[in-house]
Amino acid sequence: MAGSTFGTAFRIMTWGESHGKGVGVTIDGCPAGLPLCEADIQEYLDRRKPGQSRYTTARSEGDVVEILSGVFEGQTTGAPIAMMVRNTDQRSRDYSAIMDVYRPGHADYCFDAKYGIRDYRGGGRSSARETIARVAAGAVAAKLLGYYGIQVTAYTKSIGTVSVEQERFDLAERDKNAFNMPDASAALQAAELMEKMMAAQDSAGGVVECRVSGVPAGIGEPVFDKLDACLAKAVFSIGAVKGFEIGDGFKAARALGSENNDPFYMEEDGSVKKRTNHAGGILGGISDGSEIVLRAAFKPTPSISRQQSTVNRNGENVEISIQGRHDPVVVPRAVVVVEAMTALTVADLLLQNRNAKLDAAEGSNI
Amino acid sequence: MAGSTFGTAFRIMTWGESHGKGVGVTIDGCPAGLPLCEADIQEYLDRRKPGQSRYTTARSEGDVVEILSGVFEGQTTGAPIAMMVRNTDQRSRDYSAIMDVYRPGHADYCFDAKYGIRDYRGGGRSSARETIARVAAGAVAAKLLGYYGIQVTAYTKSIGTVSVEQERFDLAERDKNAFNMPDASAALQAAELMEKMMAAQDSAGGVVECRVSGVPAGIGEPVFDKLDACLAKAVFSIGAVKGFEIGDGFKAARALGSENNDPFYMEEDGSVKKRTNHAGGILGGISDGSEIVLRAAFKPTPSISRQQSTVNRNGENVEISIQGRHDPVVVPRAVVVVEAMTALTVADLLLQNRNAKLDAAEGSNI
Amino acid sequence: MAGSTFGTAFRIMTWGESHGKGVGVTIDGCPAGLPLCEADIQEYLDRRKPGQSRYTTARSEGDVVEILSGVFEGQTTGAPIAMMVRNTDQRSRDYSAIMDVYRPGHADYCFDAKYGIRDYRGGGRSSARETIARVAAGAVAAKLLGYYGIQVTAYTKSIGTVSVEQERFDLAERDKNAFNMPDASAALQAAELMEKMMAAQDSAGGVVECRVSGVPAGIGEPVFDKLDACLAKAVFSIGAVKGFEIGDGFKAARALGSENNDPFYMEEDGSVKKRTNHAGGILGGISDGSEIVLRAAFKPTPSISRQQSTVNRNGENVEISIQGRHDPVVVPRAVVVVEAMTALTVADLLLQNRNAKLDAAEGSNI
Amino acid sequence: MAGSTFGTAFRIMTWGESHGKGVGVTIDGCPAGLPLCEADIQEYLDRRKPGQSRYTTARSEGDVVEILSGVFEGQTTGAPIAMMVRNTDQRSRDYSAIMDVYRPGHADYCFDAKYGIRDYRGGGRSSARETIARVAAGAVAAKLLGYYGIQVTAYTKSIGTVSVEQERFDLAERDKNAFNMPDASAALQAAELMEKMMAAQDSAGGVVECRVSGVPAGIGEPVFDKLDACLAKAVFSIGAVKGFEIGDGFKAARALGSENNDPFYMEEDGSVKKRTNHAGGILGGISDGSEIVLRAAFKPTPSISRQQSTVNRNGENVEISIQGRHDPVVVPRAVVVVEAMTALTVADLLLQNRNAKLDAAEGSNI
Repeated sequence: MAGSTFGTAFRIMTWGESHGKGVGVTIDGCPAGLPLCEADIQEYLDRRKPGQSRYTTARSEGDVVEILSGVFEGQTTGAPIAMMVRNTDQRSRDYSAIMDVYRPGHADYCFDAKYGIRDYRGGGRSSARETIARVAAGAVAAKLLGYYGIQVTAYTKSIGTVSVEQERFDLAERDKNAFNMPDASAALQAAELMEKMMAAQDSAGGVVECRVSGVPAGIGEPVFDKLDACLAKAVFSIGAVKGFEIGDGFKAARALGSENNDPFYMEEDGSVKKRTNHAGGILGGISDGSEIVLRAAFKPTPSISRQQSTVNRNGENVEISIQGRHDPVVVPRAVVVVEAMTALTVADLLLQNRNAKLDAAEGSNI
Repeated sequence: MAGSTFGTAFRIMTWGESHGKGVGVTIDGCPAGLPLCEADIQEYLDRRKPGQSRYTTARSEGDVVEILSGVFEGQTTGAPIAMMVRNTDQRSRDYSAIMDVYRPGHADYCFDAKYGIRDYRGGGRSSARETIARVAAGAVAAKLLGYYGIQVTAYTKSIGTVSVEQERFDLAERDKNAFNMPDASAALQAAELMEKMMAAQDSAGGVVECRVSGVPAGIGEPVFDKLDACLAKAVFSIGAVKGFEIGDGFKAARALGSENNDPFYMEEDGSVKKRTNHAGGILGGISDGSEIVLRAAFKPTPSISRQQSTVNRNGENVEISIQGRHDPVVVPRAVVVVEAMTALTVADLLLQNRNAKLDAAEGSNI
Repeated sequence: MAGSTFGTAFRIMTWGESHGKGVGVTIDGCPAGLPLCEADIQEYLDRRKPGQSRYTTARSEGDVVEILSGVFEGQTTGAPIAMMVRNTDQRSRDYSAIMDVYRPGHADYCFDAKYGIRDYRGGGRSSARETIARVAAGAVAAKLLGYYGIQVTAYTKSIGTVSVEQERFDLAERDKNAFNMPDASAALQAAELMEKMMAAQDSAGGVVECRVSGVPAGIGEPVFDKLDACLAKAVFSIGAVKGFEIGDGFKAARALGSENNDPFYMEEDGSVKKRTNHAGGILGGISDGSEIVLRAAFKPTPSISRQQSTVNRNGENVEISIQGRHDPVVVPRAVVVVEAMTALTVADLLLQNRNAKLDAAEGSNI
Repeated sequence: MAGSTFGTAFRIMTWGESHGKGVGVTIDGCPAGLPLCEADIQEYLDRRKPGQSRYTTARSEGDVVEILSGVFEGQTTGAPIAMMVRNTDQRSRDYSAIMDVYRPGHADYCFDAKYGIRDYRGGGRSSARETIARVAAGAVAAKLLGYYGIQVTAYTKSIGTVSVEQERFDLAERDKNAFNMPDASAALQAAELMEKMMAAQDSAGGVVECRVSGVPAGIGEPVFDKLDACLAKAVFSIGAVKGFEIGDGFKAARALGSENNDPFYMEEDGSVKKRTNHAGGILGGISDGSEIVLRAAFKPTPSISRQQSTVNRNGENVEISIQGRHDPVVVPRAVVVVEAMTALTVADLLLQNRNAKLDAAEGSNI
């Protein structure tokens, strides 16, 4: 398995399991000279931390990041940036009840089929704790993008059947509720839905939307490393994602060409603009200078405490009831993960784009 | 730009523009010993060929493939397999009307922003002719998968607002109508819709669905090169794709965990099976042995002959009316392209998976 | 086998066998805006062409290159640059005498062991004709380096026991003799040696030296993609290379630190210079602004017409006498191949280096 | 900079500086099921530890490795294996004397030229401490190779002008002297030489030789990822290496083809063998089943305490005398590093080779 590497110019490799010593990431390819400190990373990690509301797991991990290399006197040096978060809540437990059972909706069976061995203490490598490494690296990518005036912002678009209404959209609300919803009213409805889910020992899914502003036209590499294709992979690699869209997404499949084409026009300042943005900021896999808009659909949390039918390693049909710490919905905590994966992708393609063309200025900056 | 490479173990590099000398692909990493001939490739290319119905462009390219290397005495040798299709329909034209204009919904502006230069004779590198290379390589991947009993099958799921009905689904119908729809009745409705589009100088989009059977459990590399993540990138790299789903996709975001989890059970033959397949054959990014199901949403063809507002290279607002050969819907011809990209992805991860674990048998087959 | 790809930012994939339809290469990652035409490539190919003297094989291939994509109106567009050279001298032959025999010093046995199948018509993929693709790509890399004022120059340093003498070194002589030796007197001695070799049905090896001027300080990526490490791989991937050195090379292993360290000093123009260049222009894997100097040792041509003992596919001990077209020394024709591989490596790392640091200028040229 | 990644199927990413928090490595792609514990790694690290003799630096680091992930119940799980060694000897110092000076023979100037910033506390990323990460990863690779019966063994071949004599070669001696020389007499002479070097405030270089036994025929990927090419890069990426050879190396350039070709013959057991091994076990870039033999030339330690001329960041000519912990010869400690890089390379290509061909057995082991 060499699938723990992401990116080309801005490349990361992650490691860690839910019940091992910790999780971490090394970034290889961050340009030198970027101001960086642990607080930059911690801010992002705190946004995905469990135990922030009664709808997220109560695991009281500190999730404190340590930068191990690559930063000197407050700046990146061009050397790899290694970061680690120790697992602190590794209570010894009796796993005998679940170690041989394949939980429905989880990767237990697939891991056994693939590797012939599985870390049965929780999700192991497929645990949501793995996303800590993504978020830590994403925080660095976001800092780099910020240097170039690029801003990545994600939020919960819907929880189950409860959606943010466009007319009530208020980004400032996002950080005021347990669901990261930019709509106070929708958040209240989501809370009601969650109460029902918890009472019913059930769970819900939802949709995360992410917007990237400030991306110049020209980012993305035809034909396979298109910006949208890379974003699709980045976001789809997050556990529980089952759908991905850019701009109008599936709605575009039912639209007319005359509606869906975004007309270009000249802005007074001489820049090229589009009157609409059905394309979500990407044409032919290359950014067009508009805001990039993407959405990811998350399935309901597979860990539910009601009884389910399944099988075990011995080939027996068994019933299982999953106890322990589980979010009735993963979407709120996934918001910052989507932001991180988006930032990593844009940063990587931004750096790759530096080699798109020769020009006079570059002659002096080989 | 180094984005014309796809895959790791089964790797391809493509080249070519719509109005250049031709398009081609080199496959690096196809195992030796696979029976292969040009007819294997041609069969796939013929499925994407233009000019097959009045709803696809009339360009009468032969699209005849030539295998240039890597095959000896009817078998692959392990050496790179280079293939080429010459462009035969390169009529000299007057491009002065369009060479400086940025067509709405196309990548013209983005290419100019990125490279500072653009092959203005048609789409250049962003033309749909580029997919010939994908299909040729995909045909080889499909042959390799066939050796392992894996079958990839795509078809049109919907054209605009016309959808295939599950109860009328008949795969045999797919190849009998101009829309590659496995539903004769839907195909008739689609034909009516197309007549309207052509009369209105407009265009439509649609959805392609693809199924992969015979994939053993265990394919896909956690955590970034998950099978679904790689499929998402593969399919999203096809021009005009705006959405992608696995299994229930966006519908899963509105489902309950208790509905969405697929219960495992033991088959009489001792194999692990699932009672439902909401997951679309993938759990935690690894195949679970069920059929893989994916869908891609295509936007309407951006080339429409009705007048549109846009800008040109000189920074002027202009009106444009696109003449020439254009499909009012790209979906039917995209079916085999989705199949190709799916086959390439599964083949690549299948080979990568050979290194997932040590076992006794491998000791003798280093 | 996915080993036919070289480079990261400036990436090539090559294909072709000695007796197939041709050989070719696709370059993915050449920046847009570079003036390029077929004559730029042909000039390099002509330097490696066989049949130029009685010491190189008489195969009368035209070796005419065709650029298939990536160039428009005399400039690179950023799209992949595909190039092909058709094999024209594919006389039908009787291979029955050699098809099952493993030639000593050749890769026949290894290919069979690896792939279970081998193109027995000549060297197949391991033929020297494969280097045509390297040279074609290297010509483009050299053109790109020339844009930045970087010049790559290789020549024959020795043939068997005959060496170029430093005091007689005259680069202008290189192109005037059959051995590409920058020393007329050494070339005469080499000619005498070759006559002996041909009379004795034997062959000789030699050393190629290559110098790169104009490389700015800072090129090379610690710690694994050091400039010298990448050059070592690039040059060692050429068939018949058995040794590689940078600067003083093996001689440095016997030197004292006080001798081997090159003292820095300030040039009048304010630049940092070194008084000596034992390091061959690279310190810590990064260019130091001095001339880069490397050497490659080539073994004697393994194809000799005198009788040799070996085995065949049936596991029998047999005698073999290799007939046909073979150079008694490969070194003269390898000179341009070393130049090509060096150019490809420096070009790749030059582009990669654009992402080494942030700076003010880059803020405006993302 | 993304140069801290090595390998494709068995891939590592390293991090760390000499005076930072530590050094580490993550392995992505080690097959599941390999028995592994920290003692396996520590054994290799102890072989490169400083302070083992008066000829190596007195830095009393413990260099104790911690496995952070990827191992469960004594076996690899297929998940990334992260390992870390904390730096324990980070005494606070006054670096003002050296922080602005470019040491001759070191990469100080190159790092500043490349990154615009440099960790001036010792070598930073270019310190020999970086090799701890290589050795830790190499220990895992060696364990994997051992599973397949492959053994990697390196030793000091020469120190300055003192060489191991073939007739006195005794591998058992290697671990009994401070120089890792498999020749007791040569080790005594080397000790005398070192005394002279230390008295003269000077340093010496040397040659490391490495042998790999048990490699089956067929390992190595034509044409760029040849086994010898990959070994060349792997070994050349170690600091201070200036030359690399396979088999007869540079000597082959002066040999005759009739001498240099290794005749094949049939062994009684039906296997193909070679009567000699001038090729060093590799033909056409693919292992031929013989022992692989390689050599690396190391330059003298650049850090010498005698006064040297150089320049500083302010563009001034200055004199420098390097104090502190420095080996008068790096070769003995480099032995295990060469072994590690060789093991990493062979392991990577061994895994890659699993995809060389289809065969009956593989049909059942996709």
